[in-house]
Amino acid sequence: MSTRTKGAVLIADGLGDRPVAELDGRTPLEAADTPYLDRVAAEGECGQMDPIAPGVRPGSDTAHLAILGYDPFKVYTGRGPFEALGIGMDVQRGDICFRCNFATIEGELTLTSDGKFTGAKVADRRAQRISEGTHDLAEAVNGMTVEDVTCYVKESVEHRAALVLRGPGLGADVSDVDPHDADAPPHGAEGKDESSRKTARIANQFVLRSWEALKDHPVNQQRVADGKLPANIVMPRGAGIAPHLEAFAERYGVPGACIVETGLIAGIGRYLEMTVPEVPGATGGMDTDELALARAVVEMLADHDFVLCNLKAPDLGGHDSDVRGKMVGAQKFDNLVAAVLDGAADEVHVAITADHATPISFGDHSGDTVPIAICGPNVRPDSVRSFGERAVVAGGLARIRGSDIMPILTNLMGVQEKFGA
Amino acid sequence: MSTRTKGAVLIADGLGDRPVAELDGRTPLEAADTPYLDRVAAEGECGQMDPIAPGVRPGSDTAHLAILGYDPFKVYTGRGPFEALGIGMDVQRGDICFRCNFATIEGELTLTSDGKFTGAKVADRRAQRISEGTHDLAEAVNGMTVEDVTCYVKESVEHRAALVLRGPGLGADVSDVDPHDADAPPHGAEGKDESSRKTARIANQFVLRSWEALKDHPVNQQRVADGKLPANIVMPRGAGIAPHLEAFAERYGVPGACIVETGLIAGIGRYLEMTVPEVPGATGGMDTDELALARAVVEMLADHDFVLCNLKAPDLGGHDSDVRGKMVGAQKFDNLVAAVLDGAADEVHVAITADHATPISFGDHSGDTVPIAICGPNVRPDSVRSFGERAVVAGGLARIRGSDIMPILTNLMGVQEKFGA
Repeated sequence: MSTRTKGAVLIADGLGDRPVAELDGRTPLEAADTPYLDRVAAEGECGQMDPIAPGVRPGSDTAHLAILGYDPFKVYTGRGPFEALGIGMDVQRGDICFRCNFATIEGELTLTSDGKFTGAKVADRRAQRISEGTHDLAEAVNGMTVEDVTCYVKESVEHRAALVLRGPGLGADVSDVDPHDADAPPHGAEGKDESSRKTARIANQFVLRSWEALKDHPVNQQRVADGKLPANIVMPRGAGIAPHLEAFAERYGVPGACIVETGLIAGIGRYLEMTVPEVPGATGGMDTDELALARAVVEMLADHDFVLCNLKAPDLGGHDSDVRGKMVGAQKFDNLVAAVLDGAADEVHVAITADHATPISFGDHSGDTVPIAICGPNVRPDSVRSFGERAVVAGGLARIRGSDIMPILTNLMGVQEKFGA
Repeated sequence: MSTRTKGAVLIADGLGDRPVAELDGRTPLEAADTPYLDRVAAEGECGQMDPIAPGVRPGSDTAHLAILGYDPFKVYTGRGPFEALGIGMDVQRGDICFRCNFATIEGELTLTSDGKFTGAKVADRRAQRISEGTHDLAEAVNGMTVEDVTCYVKESVEHRAALVLRGPGLGADVSDVDPHDADAPPHGAEGKDESSRKTARIANQFVLRSWEALKDHPVNQQRVADGKLPANIVMPRGAGIAPHLEAFAERYGVPGACIVETGLIAGIGRYLEMTVPEVPGATGGMDTDELALARAVVEMLADHDFVLCNLKAPDLGGHDSDVRGKMVGAQKFDNLVAAVLDGAADEVHVAITADHATPISFGDHSGDTVPIAICGPNVRPDSVRSFGERAVVAGGLARIRGSDIMPILTNLMGVQEKFGA
């Protein structure tokens, strides 16, 4: 009797908002013309969602982890791995990940046999907040091999970068190389157990060799010629081990795909071994082709039981406090939802929601609830007729959390194991 | 000033449902004529309940544990004890419980002094899914004593059975006797610590003696004469220790009773040392005498502060996808509630709800919310006027969990200790 159906969670990044005076107290979503979002609300079951927990301000990473059913309070320990994912690095379980600075040291760095740095001191922990040339500097040290460990480096914004160590027998209980003070030498990393001592040894060698590779690098030669401090060393801190997260298909017994625009969320999807295809035309900007995203969702639903899709545009308007831009983002989401409803089979359960609010008045992620609506053959339609922050309050879902979405959806899809007899 | 009242939770098993096309999109509960359920809703406070957690598909066992205030995520580890309870066995704290198969072995089984089986191999782990005669086979080995341990055996469906070991100093960290493969000898159970090694020794002796008792049993002589494989051994697996659950009266400070129709829930009630009387006329079927159940509730309320009652009938219609049957089940629940309201004192707080949904369209337990309403002198009546999955959405209880019922009820009853000063 029980029939399996498929499910999709369509996420308008940062869509939630607060009343805006120039919209006569409406939110951008309430003011925007979004007939297909309203259709999902009218045909489905609605409510409010706390992406993490009531009032908690989510990151995009923690919100998506929660929505996919991985408790961020448990798995989001040590930011290294998710920071590396966030700048688009490949991170695998067991990798040791560090946050790093490109920094300036003065002197001739040497590493003693007992793992201490001497001969040089930190002149600027941020190399004068270097903002150009860091891609080339990262490339100069990326892929280095130390013993049987490969060191991957990628630049982030300004002087920031991430280091991923991949190899056997590495631990994460390692102190920082970054001394967190100028005028001190880099600290030799120390490990608290055997595997972490190996990590410390590798990290120290990596740091020494980063100095050797960067001190005369053309980018730095130019900086010195321009009267700037050279970014002549990479200093790691905040080691964390990439956590063991059960793969999505293992956890839910069905294959899943992610159609997303940002490296961070794509990284989470890949980490969970979901299918994460490239979508031509998905720019992550206001000019993104939302219909291309919708087509990818429909295509993925052909051979995946579950698809998560994230449209970045609404969040941009929120961060810029741009009311019209945010309304355009909401309308682009409406276009996306329309195309998914049009292209996907009738029996697919479609949830529409946001990963967090990014209120116009705040310009950053907030801990307000976001609206959610789920339509499909197995829901109990409620009295709500439009999709907005306040309209959904009367809905049958009442107030749920991001971590409730997957149980609710797999229940509707008929693919969840019973707990008990 | 504070006056104590009593409380009852009346549970319509599997009552929750989804819209049914032949009922014009209403659920069976919404379509059934249930004036007394509506009276409770109108006079009381209503809401939705997730028996376990949003979206999670409950078993009857896990749902009742949660409703009685015992977190199934903590106590429902290792299915052995609840499986044994589920087939109506007496299980006591500290008992070691196994799931078992009646199986077929070929050869002359011997047990070496170091606990290994030799001389015989498994020919069929399920004895051709034997379906008849297992009660007699179980009786032939039930009650056996090995050292100072008593071995209780009861048949379940087909080739399945449960084994309960009761005696001093037993542990549960024991490997399976069932080799999970044909053509292998039974595995000698092994224990990981001293108490578990005792369990392993007892289990191995039990297995050897089960073969001695069953190999020439009349049921098996007949099977062989009919050209079938004999069910000549009991092979245990999945050991679990019956958890320490605080008795109901200890936890809540008041005596409680269970008026239920199924062995599994009766077993949970007995396990919590609640009063679990036999109710003549309670069949667990559609022909059950719901008024006899109601009378038993009223009688138990005379000397118990709390009574839980479960009417099985609505669940049967759900499992059979029988719309009319499920509506009859809802009406029987209405009769039961009417008789309790009529018979019990006015100051009793009565909660009506379900342990889970068993939707017509799904034919099994689902993770949808179920409606709940509580009436009595201390509730704050809300605007809801009828008892249905969607009518209760607007109610004052909003969306609660099964584990919230006992705190809410003992609060209304005025029997709960204050947390803090």
